[in-house]
Amino acid sequence: MAEREAAERAARAAAENYGTENYGKLPMNQSQERKGVNRIRVSDINAGRAGETVTIRARVHTSRATSAKLAFFVFRQQDSTIQGVLTIDETNISKNFVKFASNVPVESIVIVEGIVMRTQEEIKSTTVSDAELQIKKFYVMSETHGRLPFSLEDASRSEEEFNKEDVQFSRVTLETRLNHRVVDLRVSRMRALITVANHGIFRIQSGICQLFREFLLSKSFIEIHTPKIIGAASEGGSNVFSIKYFKGEAFLAQSPQLYKQMCICSDFERVFEIAPVFRAEDSNTHRHMTEFMGLDLEMAFEEHYHEALDILDELFVFIFDGLKTRYASEIKTVKSQYPSADFEYHPKTLRLEYKDAVQLLRENGTEIGDFEDLSTEKEKFLGKLVKEKYKTDFYILDKFPLAVRPFYTMPDSNDNRYSNSYDFFMRGQEILSGAQRIHDPVFLEERAKVHGVDIRTIQPYIDSFKRGAPPHAGGGIGLERVVMFYLNLDDIRRSSLFPRDPKRLEP
Amino acid sequence: MAEREAAERAARAAAENYGTENYGKLPMNQSQERKGVNRIRVSDINAGRAGETVTIRARVHTSRATSAKLAFFVFRQQDSTIQGVLTIDETNISKNFVKFASNVPVESIVIVEGIVMRTQEEIKSTTVSDAELQIKKFYVMSETHGRLPFSLEDASRSEEEFNKEDVQFSRVTLETRLNHRVVDLRVSRMRALITVANHGIFRIQSGICQLFREFLLSKSFIEIHTPKIIGAASEGGSNVFSIKYFKGEAFLAQSPQLYKQMCICSDFERVFEIAPVFRAEDSNTHRHMTEFMGLDLEMAFEEHYHEALDILDELFVFIFDGLKTRYASEIKTVKSQYPSADFEYHPKTLRLEYKDAVQLLRENGTEIGDFEDLSTEKEKFLGKLVKEKYKTDFYILDKFPLAVRPFYTMPDSNDNRYSNSYDFFMRGQEILSGAQRIHDPVFLEERAKVHGVDIRTIQPYIDSFKRGAPPHAGGGIGLERVVMFYLNLDDIRRSSLFPRDPKRLEP
Repeated sequence: MAEREAAERAARAAAENYGTENYGKLPMNQSQERKGVNRIRVSDINAGRAGETVTIRARVHTSRATSAKLAFFVFRQQDSTIQGVLTIDETNISKNFVKFASNVPVESIVIVEGIVMRTQEEIKSTTVSDAELQIKKFYVMSETHGRLPFSLEDASRSEEEFNKEDVQFSRVTLETRLNHRVVDLRVSRMRALITVANHGIFRIQSGICQLFREFLLSKSFIEIHTPKIIGAASEGGSNVFSIKYFKGEAFLAQSPQLYKQMCICSDFERVFEIAPVFRAEDSNTHRHMTEFMGLDLEMAFEEHYHEALDILDELFVFIFDGLKTRYASEIKTVKSQYPSADFEYHPKTLRLEYKDAVQLLRENGTEIGDFEDLSTEKEKFLGKLVKEKYKTDFYILDKFPLAVRPFYTMPDSNDNRYSNSYDFFMRGQEILSGAQRIHDPVFLEERAKVHGVDIRTIQPYIDSFKRGAPPHAGGGIGLERVVMFYLNLDDIRRSSLFPRDPKRLEP
Repeated sequence: MAEREAAERAARAAAENYGTENYGKLPMNQSQERKGVNRIRVSDINAGRAGETVTIRARVHTSRATSAKLAFFVFRQQDSTIQGVLTIDETNISKNFVKFASNVPVESIVIVEGIVMRTQEEIKSTTVSDAELQIKKFYVMSETHGRLPFSLEDASRSEEEFNKEDVQFSRVTLETRLNHRVVDLRVSRMRALITVANHGIFRIQSGICQLFREFLLSKSFIEIHTPKIIGAASEGGSNVFSIKYFKGEAFLAQSPQLYKQMCICSDFERVFEIAPVFRAEDSNTHRHMTEFMGLDLEMAFEEHYHEALDILDELFVFIFDGLKTRYASEIKTVKSQYPSADFEYHPKTLRLEYKDAVQLLRENGTEIGDFEDLSTEKEKFLGKLVKEKYKTDFYILDKFPLAVRPFYTMPDSNDNRYSNSYDFFMRGQEILSGAQRIHDPVFLEERAKVHGVDIRTIQPYIDSFKRGAPPHAGGGIGLERVVMFYLNLDDIRRSSLFPRDPKRLEP
């Protein structure tokens, strides 16, 4: 009896064990060979290819074995997904194959070969809606280890879904997301069409940089790279990071301000830079980081700093137009997880003077002094008033009080309590600060002294103007802020790949 | 008598003092008014405009009064120059005007109005050769203070000129140039056509970045920005700068290596970054800086790391082709001050394996172990041998010994004493280093331990691979090195706007 049972078991096992070459774990890829495989992108698969055998590299997004003989998969490749069906047959696909495949943990990367099949009905849960794969081969290229820190479904829900009364979902906090940023960055939405909101955010971020450069290069600007390690805390010592520099000390640049101006003194005429800036501010708010990307520009002008203001104005309209036309699908994707009203702007940007803003605030019951700086609260309230009155999420505030601006800001020639300086606002919050700079070395030194700046720390900068300098103006833009306010995200950390704040240095 | 003399003096003075509105110092530009002046670029002036009255903003490059009645000027605007002639007349241009104008120090910025005049003969000392300006108005916008640190003529001579026996020029050292970088960056050449070698160098640098991005964006790469402040000295502690970070400590990233790989783990598939990298190496050589620009890229591949190598290879050929076609005049300009043989490369780049390089060195009398790293000296000698044998200044060395590469380098599957890693060389010196990276977290941890890396410092990095990672490869390029070796400059500091080394933090 025992012998017979053993023989039967062996026969069953053998019967279940055919076609073992069709599935399994691949050895670690060490570039063993280059056959020139032809893998297809999931986004390129559709019913038009019905009957074709194709191979994909994708993640197991979901898997579900409905019996020992049949399993369903969703495979994901960036923001595209496709359904896969695995059914046993008598020669190539055994129960063992089905068991193996359905046990592969989600998020593992697999190589799947299958036949494209036209589906009877539209599949609503995947981006490829008219076709699926009849799986023939299934290999694990990279398997996940241990449990995921959170489920991608949980992480991809929008606020709307949480607010429904009849369901209960776990909310993945921003803190948890950032602790496991590598998984968070993959996050997909499952409802209707899948979306990868986080990829969308960073494609838009990348797009803003491309548009910024494209516009400025067309206006004869040149790209520069200025040092981030500097010898003196030249823009004020309080919020600067210090570095141990061999046997001495150095500092991290709080902006490329002084250096981009020095390039103007070197006759570069028009320069821009995209680079990290560092601020040792102990601010734990939703809009501050200790490291962020600065999009900076500076230009000589002929007569009036509004020549620069015009360029900056045009630049932003160019970026907003470009986002709308070139990044429509990414914007849609992000909005599906982070719903918000479309960003409103006009072809010709609204410009207000500071004193008009003060007036507007007063008319609406806010007390503010003529030369008082805008607090965050007042800034936001002003944005709200502007939006109501002018129907725009984007505007320029010109002629700030001199006292609230940096020492190198040029005073207004008509009233030196004001200055030739401006901020740009998106959804009521500042995203650019700029001004005409003082190009006269004697006056510059005088103003630095008024501000209590130690002249010795900025001597090379002041000396630059002694060799002759044209009048010039420029501005600095916070990249993550533009992304954040354009998409109306609730926290700037969502628009930084690996954000840094006083409490976060990892990952 | 005295009265008569006084009266005559007054009459003479009055006679010399007419037309005072046509010259003088302008008040500091504070954007007093915006008339919409129409200033012309010097490069747009030619004999075709003869008879037109034009206004330019330019520097006084040279000035020479041949008498009290006549003065000659050369005005410079970036790399264009034009001659100006100032002659007294009876109504508008007085001797005082001539005296005032010829006393304006060189390098001052002036606004000059004049009539374009066709010249009788070709002017060989200015870029505008068929026209000059008959000066009518002459205003100082920004005057230089004090003596220039060196004369631009001295600073713009080529080695050839110093080597002539019959002349004696002062040589401006690199040290002096860098101390006064703002003036140095303007440096022009006076012989034949004027050239501004330094502007040329940085236009080429800017061009390399544009070409790098243009190529990679066309290959579906996305631009990323990764943090420069990091929580742990993750790539080895010896040459990392430490920062005081609020109450704790942080470090400056020595490369975006770990972060760009983490983006691959987040399914970005293909990423690039242009950003500063920081190395606390106490090396005072002609090719080391403590801060330089890294052009980094990383990509998932299907089968073999040579997919990435092919992209990198194509990328460089695209950059070299682009420089040749789009930056021909800048290259010519730089070469006129820093003469060098044209950079030679082939449409299909030469690829050698490390063991072939060892063989080639041995055949030429150099002793080197099979798995020994290339010293700078051997690297250069190898470049010389390659150039002789293959007529190229650009080649790829593949399959480096595993032991000389970083811990995350994938070993060769056929012989684990070698690795799937490569360097690219220009004029015999390394400008890119790259490899297939280990994407298996268990093996990665094992290799890190072999290298003595403290696993705790790279835990978030290792964890990234536990969520599934595709095989991937990439590389990091030193921007200033590419500029330096392409143009065959003698020191990397010439290809950095404001270079940083262990001894230089200013300007």
